[in-house]
Amino acid sequence: MKNRYRKLPKKRQNSDYWIYGHHAVIGALMNDSRVKYEINFTMEAEKKLNQEINIKEFSFIKRLKTREEIENILGGISNHQGICIRVEKLHLNELKEFLNQFNNDNSIIALLDQLEDSQNVGAIFRSALAFNLDGIILTQDNSVNENSFLTKAASSAIDKVSFTKIKNISSCIKILKESGYWIYGLEMNAGKSLKKMEFPKKVVIILGSEHKGLRKITTSLCDDLIKIDINNELESLNVSNTAAIAFYDISNKILNS
Amino acid sequence: MKNRYRKLPKKRQNSDYWIYGHHAVIGALMNDSRVKYEINFTMEAEKKLNQEINIKEFSFIKRLKTREEIENILGGISNHQGICIRVEKLHLNELKEFLNQFNNDNSIIALLDQLEDSQNVGAIFRSALAFNLDGIILTQDNSVNENSFLTKAASSAIDKVSFTKIKNISSCIKILKESGYWIYGLEMNAGKSLKKMEFPKKVVIILGSEHKGLRKITTSLCDDLIKIDINNELESLNVSNTAAIAFYDISNKILNS
Repeated sequence: MKNRYRKLPKKRQNSDYWIYGHHAVIGALMNDSRVKYEINFTMEAEKKLNQEINIKEFSFIKRLKTREEIENILGGISNHQGICIRVEKLHLNELKEFLNQFNNDNSIIALLDQLEDSQNVGAIFRSALAFNLDGIILTQDNSVNENSFLTKAASSAIDKVSFTKIKNISSCIKILKESGYWIYGLEMNAGKSLKKMEFPKKVVIILGSEHKGLRKITTSLCDDLIKIDINNELESLNVSNTAAIAFYDISNKILNS
Repeated sequence: MKNRYRKLPKKRQNSDYWIYGHHAVIGALMNDSRVKYEINFTMEAEKKLNQEINIKEFSFIKRLKTREEIENILGGISNHQGICIRVEKLHLNELKEFLNQFNNDNSIIALLDQLEDSQNVGAIFRSALAFNLDGIILTQDNSVNENSFLTKAASSAIDKVSFTKIKNISSCIKILKESGYWIYGLEMNAGKSLKKMEFPKKVVIILGSEHKGLRKITTSLCDDLIKIDINNELESLNVSNTAAIAFYDISNKILNS
C-alpha cells in the first residue's frame, strides 16, 4: 500500500476527497473539469439522481451501498442524503487567466481575506452563485482549502462559481485595479453605509475573518470602506450573512438595474 | 450525587446548559432574567471579561481553569475562547404576553417554521438583533431548543432578542393578525420579489426549513408570499442567509425610512 501511494505524482497526493449530499454531487457530476473517481449511493439516492442526470453516461466506478456504509466511508458524517462521490480537487487558474474569463462590462468578484471556516466559505460560494458574482478569490495563507464540509455548505456552487487562490494581496489588488475593478472593503467601523452607496460597473468586495476583520494591509489597498448598519448591541454579523447582504445589495444595484 | 439531582424540582431538570465564547457569555451575564450557576475561565479570558463587565459583582461560583479543562467541561468543544458559564434556559412568555412588550407602531417579528439546525437558528437570532427585529417565534414541534451551539452562533443575541415558542401555527397567526401584523412567507417559488415589495408598519416574516420550505398549512395562512431572486442554477439559499437579506431589506424599508 505504502509503495502505491509513493508512486503517485506529487501534485496528486492528498488532493482527492469526498463530496456528499445530493446537490453537491450533482454539481460535481455536471462539471466537466472535475476529475471523478467513484460514486457510492443508496438505491433511493440513485433513483433521485437519475431524475436529474443520466448516471449511466459516466464511466467511473458506481457502488450501491446502505446509508450506514456511506456514513462509514465519510468517517461518521450523517447528513449525506445517501450519496457521495470521490473526486479530485479543482485545478485553479492563475489570477490573470481567472480574470480573462470575465469579459462582460458588469462584474462582481468577492475576495476572501484569510477566511478559515469551511461552513462560512461554503455559504459564501452559495450566495455568490445566487447573486451572479463572476468569481471568488481566496488568499493562499490562513485560508480554508476545498474540502467535504465546504463543498456541502456550498450546495453545488463550488462547481459553478469560478475561484482562484493568491499569494500576495498587494499584487493581486494591483492587477484587479489594472483590470478596471474598484475595490471595496467591508468593515464594521467604516464611514459609509452599504445601502446608500452607488457602485461602478466592476466591483471587488473584500471580506475579512469574523474575529480579526480585514488586515491593515488590505484596508490600505481599498478604494473605499463600507459597512452594513447594525444595532450597536451587536459586535458584528456572521461573515456569511454579511456576504449574502452585500452580494444581494450590490448585484441589485449594478447587475439588475 | 444521584440523590441531589433527584431532589431538583421537575421543571428544573435538564434545563441547565453551558454557554461558551466571549460574546455569548457577556450576553448571559448582562441579562438579568438569566439564571446563572457557575462560570469557568482562563486567566486571559477573565482579564478580557473584566474590561467589559465587573465580574466581582456576581455572586455565583467562579473557577479559574486551563483551556484544556474548559474543553473537557464542554465535551470537546474547542472554540470556547477560554470561557464558559452554566446557566438555566430562559423562561418563555406566552404569545400574547410576548406581543405585549412591543407597543411601538413599527414592528418586525420573525416566525421560524420548524427549523432544526442550531447553527442556522443562532445566526438568525444574530441577524434579528442586527436589524432591530422585535422578536422571534419558534414552533414547538420539530424545532431546535436553546442549546450551547445555538447560543454560540447567536453571539449575544439569544439574551437580547425576545423569543417564544408556539404549539399551533394557525391560532398563532390569528393572534398576530388581530394584533395588526401582516404575514409574509418567504418562498423560492413565490410570485413577488422582495426587492420590489413595499411593506406595512407591522410585519411578520415566516421562514421554513431549507429542505422542506414552508408547510402547506403555513403558506395558506400568509397574507402574501415573497421570494429573493436568485440565479436559477441554484436550488435555494442557506436559510440564515435568506433571513439576513430579508431582515436587512425590510428593516431598511420600514424601520429606517
